[in-house]
Amino acid sequence: MRALNLLASRVTAVTIQPMCELLGMNCNVPTDIRFSFSGLVERGGRTGEHRDGWGISFYEGTASRTFHDPRASVESEIAELVRGHSVKSLNVICHIRKATNGRVCLANTHPFTRELWGRSWTFAHNGKLKGVKKLPLTFYEPIGTTDSEYAFCWMLGHIRDRFPKPPRTEGGLRGCVQGLADELNKLGTFNMLLCDARHLFCYCSTNLTWLTRRAPFGKATLIDRELTVDFSEETTPRDIVTVIATQPLTRHEPWTVMEPGSLVIFQDGVTV
Amino acid sequence: MRALNLLASRVTAVTIQPMCELLGMNCNVPTDIRFSFSGLVERGGRTGEHRDGWGISFYEGTASRTFHDPRASVESEIAELVRGHSVKSLNVICHIRKATNGRVCLANTHPFTRELWGRSWTFAHNGKLKGVKKLPLTFYEPIGTTDSEYAFCWMLGHIRDRFPKPPRTEGGLRGCVQGLADELNKLGTFNMLLCDARHLFCYCSTNLTWLTRRAPFGKATLIDRELTVDFSEETTPRDIVTVIATQPLTRHEPWTVMEPGSLVIFQDGVTV
Repeated sequence: MRALNLLASRVTAVTIQPMCELLGMNCNVPTDIRFSFSGLVERGGRTGEHRDGWGISFYEGTASRTFHDPRASVESEIAELVRGHSVKSLNVICHIRKATNGRVCLANTHPFTRELWGRSWTFAHNGKLKGVKKLPLTFYEPIGTTDSEYAFCWMLGHIRDRFPKPPRTEGGLRGCVQGLADELNKLGTFNMLLCDARHLFCYCSTNLTWLTRRAPFGKATLIDRELTVDFSEETTPRDIVTVIATQPLTRHEPWTVMEPGSLVIFQDGVTV
Repeated sequence: MRALNLLASRVTAVTIQPMCELLGMNCNVPTDIRFSFSGLVERGGRTGEHRDGWGISFYEGTASRTFHDPRASVESEIAELVRGHSVKSLNVICHIRKATNGRVCLANTHPFTRELWGRSWTFAHNGKLKGVKKLPLTFYEPIGTTDSEYAFCWMLGHIRDRFPKPPRTEGGLRGCVQGLADELNKLGTFNMLLCDARHLFCYCSTNLTWLTRRAPFGKATLIDRELTVDFSEETTPRDIVTVIATQPLTRHEPWTVMEPGSLVIFQDGVTV
């Protein structure tokens, strides 16, 4: 029995590495993320070892709602609800967790959320940050004990200090987020998704890929389970939908692998 | 048909007034709120007219998770999940909405949440506050457009100014919350539930009642639907569970009707 389990672990490790998994979506029209989500949840205990909880944040305007569950996503009734329930959104951040820092509990379950400028900001992280808790915090304090939430509080405090009001252009914000992410990346591994209700900021430390789907739409097949969708039946010709993930979720689509140390910002489905 | 609908409205109006409904729970052991919740959701479109969304926040330690739905609770799949899913918690805040100020959308759906002292604070309000948006805000800004969230941001900003760190005793915090709630109450109606992850603050402007269940436990029957529970089968002799609601949820139990302008604070199921 033990040998079989070991074998199973080895087999899954070939395709999916045992770290947290990130999934993001940014679009120009409210879009249903269920297809990508169904692939990702398989990594929460079946094709992957990320059994230590999961969470997903959906935006509606400047507000977000998050479904959190400290249990494995493949066994989660809440994941079942999300899979069966069409929520259309312009921005989504999702995370399934393999605990490396901080015990398994709700307070340590990504995505994390704070308010700045009257907007909900959400954050999810893959990786480990050594010594991050020595960085001084200003405004936001972590509720749980993860290095990830601490890093988010540190970043958002700096953004708030630098921009007490939202900047008129993205330029300043891009430089600020890039600089803060670079600092954190020096402490270990910092693959990150961050959303300010308008932009989806994606920082690659080691693993982050993205894919933009637009007309003419075709079919896509998940890697993690037997499921194919024909997006031409689900979309209009003007839809632009970008999906970001730690590792590609589908076969035969042109996923862009991000360079280590790079930041990509999406708005309305396209890079800005 | 019209006459029938009018009749139905009049019949329900006898028992449930058309305002928002609040429900809170504070206990000494993690407790399932589903019995009370099943009564409350009936008011979200069946026995009451509160069709403009609902939300519920459950605490786990210093963290909370919230299920929000801008749709009527009687038609909500998420309410169905909450009804079918045992979440045990020491503190719960729930709200069903009859929109009076701010359109029906996620950003305007209670409970609202902010972080202070590394704890999740949640807030729900019943009533209307005229001119509240003239009050100056310091730290927190509303994400939606309700008078309620504005009032929460104003209160929490003041608490943060007065107590940058959590006070050692409840005394100061009680005086601070009472003073802020009294100010808001002057602007209209301010029935409020506020939780700092330890205490449940309940302020009565016009309608708020509470009930403490403890050994020897007996049976309780909901007012809003045919459901009776024998709590002696669900509890241990040391359990103490307090339920707070805009109006009593059960028949034949000794609900305490709060005095207008009074604040009651619960911790571990008892008043402090």
